[in-house]
Amino acid sequence: MKPIQVGLLGIGTIGSGTFEVLARNQEEIRRRAGRGIEIAMVADLDIERARQIVAGHAQVVSDARAVIANPDIEIVVELIGGYGIARQLVLEAIAAGKHVVTANKALLAVHGAEIFEQAQRQGVMVAFEAAVAGGVPIIKALREGLTANRIQWVAGIINGTTNFILSEMRDKGLDFAAALKDAQRLGYAEADPTFDIEGIDAAHKITLMSAIAFGIPVQFDQAYIEGITKLAATDIRYAEQLGYRIKLLGVTRRMPQGIELRVHPALIPARRLIANVEGAMNAVVVNGDAVGTTLYYGKGAGKEPTASAVIADLVDLTRLAASDPQHRVPHLAFQPGALYDMRVMSMEETITGYYLRLRVADQAGVLARLATTLAEASISIDALLQREADEVGGTGSEPQTDLVILTHEAREGNMNRALAQLQALPGVLAPIVRIRKEELA
Amino acid sequence: MKPIQVGLLGIGTIGSGTFEVLARNQEEIRRRAGRGIEIAMVADLDIERARQIVAGHAQVVSDARAVIANPDIEIVVELIGGYGIARQLVLEAIAAGKHVVTANKALLAVHGAEIFEQAQRQGVMVAFEAAVAGGVPIIKALREGLTANRIQWVAGIINGTTNFILSEMRDKGLDFAAALKDAQRLGYAEADPTFDIEGIDAAHKITLMSAIAFGIPVQFDQAYIEGITKLAATDIRYAEQLGYRIKLLGVTRRMPQGIELRVHPALIPARRLIANVEGAMNAVVVNGDAVGTTLYYGKGAGKEPTASAVIADLVDLTRLAASDPQHRVPHLAFQPGALYDMRVMSMEETITGYYLRLRVADQAGVLARLATTLAEASISIDALLQREADEVGGTGSEPQTDLVILTHEAREGNMNRALAQLQALPGVLAPIVRIRKEELA
Repeated sequence: MKPIQVGLLGIGTIGSGTFEVLARNQEEIRRRAGRGIEIAMVADLDIERARQIVAGHAQVVSDARAVIANPDIEIVVELIGGYGIARQLVLEAIAAGKHVVTANKALLAVHGAEIFEQAQRQGVMVAFEAAVAGGVPIIKALREGLTANRIQWVAGIINGTTNFILSEMRDKGLDFAAALKDAQRLGYAEADPTFDIEGIDAAHKITLMSAIAFGIPVQFDQAYIEGITKLAATDIRYAEQLGYRIKLLGVTRRMPQGIELRVHPALIPARRLIANVEGAMNAVVVNGDAVGTTLYYGKGAGKEPTASAVIADLVDLTRLAASDPQHRVPHLAFQPGALYDMRVMSMEETITGYYLRLRVADQAGVLARLATTLAEASISIDALLQREADEVGGTGSEPQTDLVILTHEAREGNMNRALAQLQALPGVLAPIVRIRKEELA
Repeated sequence: MKPIQVGLLGIGTIGSGTFEVLARNQEEIRRRAGRGIEIAMVADLDIERARQIVAGHAQVVSDARAVIANPDIEIVVELIGGYGIARQLVLEAIAAGKHVVTANKALLAVHGAEIFEQAQRQGVMVAFEAAVAGGVPIIKALREGLTANRIQWVAGIINGTTNFILSEMRDKGLDFAAALKDAQRLGYAEADPTFDIEGIDAAHKITLMSAIAFGIPVQFDQAYIEGITKLAATDIRYAEQLGYRIKLLGVTRRMPQGIELRVHPALIPARRLIANVEGAMNAVVVNGDAVGTTLYYGKGAGKEPTASAVIADLVDLTRLAASDPQHRVPHLAFQPGALYDMRVMSMEETITGYYLRLRVADQAGVLARLATTLAEASISIDALLQREADEVGGTGSEPQTDLVILTHEAREGNMNRALAQLQALPGVLAPIVRIRKEELA
């Protein structure tokens, strides 16, 4: 049987990785798919570089539309990134009746609703394993491996840049700024690291996972997003003393009144496997009502890990090419028309535990007033540390103390109000640090 | 569209779990599959119990052949276990043109070659996600998620009974016999625990994974199998001091001269995620040439986790029911006729690291003779501990010492010969303990 013909839009890092892995393992892949997979055409603005990479094994053009217009090409792989021209080209590929494979989490998080709807209308597939957690087949696990389950929650370390920075902060006691510089120097963070350190990239990915896990539309604009830029080495140390690690976590959780969809730093008990995921590795924990807790771990990014995911999608599409369009695996795991209308809860409704660090004047009574304020807000204390402050601020020789509190679960709205009251107390000398805590039991 | 009709052979723990989860999550599952999945008929020798479980929602018979002969049933789920009648019934179901879903690792490990060949001939599927690592979708990951990769190795903690026992031994300092009793009392080990503690169950599972990972025939009879019955609390303690955990590991690895296929206790560096998998949980690490190291973790057994895997297979088959038989996902991940003829290496050819514990008379020169013997066998020492022995054996008041050695990688054949020489040395007072060490880097 003739190999299936594939077109690449963009042959940067991931595109060249895809080309190289397909070439290197073509025999293995053909045995598995039952049919060869051939990159017939590559579009890239840098024609010279593209020609060097394909070395005559594919046609190279500068115009992506030539790929889309090519009648022999059945699958288009979008590897341009961003949501500008990429959106336009993906929609055109769909309109031309081609399946689409993409690694573009930003595009799908922001424009996924429109894209999946068009694909459904055309009867073509949009596959995106490469958009989340690199080569770890988490999308496939959620969409197929765990279909028997009512998914309860998904929590993930899904941004390698921030996890690398946090590992550096912990291992070397660095402040955020120093760790970020390290990460940039070693190539784990970009020159402009905003998308990563502000949690936006993680939010794109947890949004996609929430859509698949709960069968709801993609709702990126509803996500609560908080990055790691405000984390201090002090908090990482205190968390460690209390038996926790701090990670940037993407969380989505089914609740009676809707779903949670949030990204923020979180304390996780050190004994959880996921708390021990270091450096640029990713891990996703999924809890389903039948299977219980499962975890998927591996490289979250990189040329060949991401290429592995792109090719997994190509093989899937190749295998399913002959199947009944009505019943092939639906993009978002759920058949169209069966998407639930479940609202994303506001952050104020989230119930979670907290780490609080207060710099206080060491006065008798401060602690009592704190305890009263929290109790009145129905927030109960799990653990408490008092430490003489390392650096003494202020003008006088009045001793200062760090009060570190771990709370049990509380409603974020309650906590926000309690924090406002605590902040206003005389004796509380600096902005209170608040980091959420996820037991992930 | 009418629901797909399924027949259950056996409605014990897994069968009733499958029935209950399908009923509880039927809406979710129907949305995902695009079609309902209905257990139409159940065969069990205990008709009364079966009738109670299905409560009128399926037809109950005592004769499995009635299920196989039912023309409306498209998928037969074999949950009887063992390789007696189960083999016969699976072959008959295949001959009758029905797809088969099974959790029966023993059957497939021993008779898989014959069963998959018959299924291929008939153009039907045999799916077995539930046979390995409970609800963790590892078979799907190997067969589909990682298709882009040349798999280099797979290593797994895939037997919950033994992992629970080892966790008990470590946490409570118990000997194997005491920990086994605990496990039996708590329901983690059977009255006759042989299959588990001797490593046979783990060997069934790693054999199936090796077939999928490398595209080779199922070759259970070639596996090297060693269980945990000879492990002592002493060795678990020493391993801990050296920075390792001891786990029963199933390993399969691609080597130039063939594949390794083995089950045995192994020291694993404590910093590896898999070393921290405790109790009855399972984890499988897969290393592929593109994706690198990935890990899959979750409950390895249990009523609902296993049911989750059975139903995942049912949904897969339902989705693919209309697809072209030539190109649906092949059982063993590779198209028939494309299975490699790769031989399983003998244990003597395995290259791995070792933990050795020798009880020696504390004489000057014993250590020197040891070092010489190992060096002559091209075995280099990574670490060495000397500890005065806890319990003094022997007749005299001569002091005894435990010599604990970690070696770098060496060929097992060399190590066997070296061990024979060491055992013969005067000054070596007891049988030498040898446990293999896997860095899993």
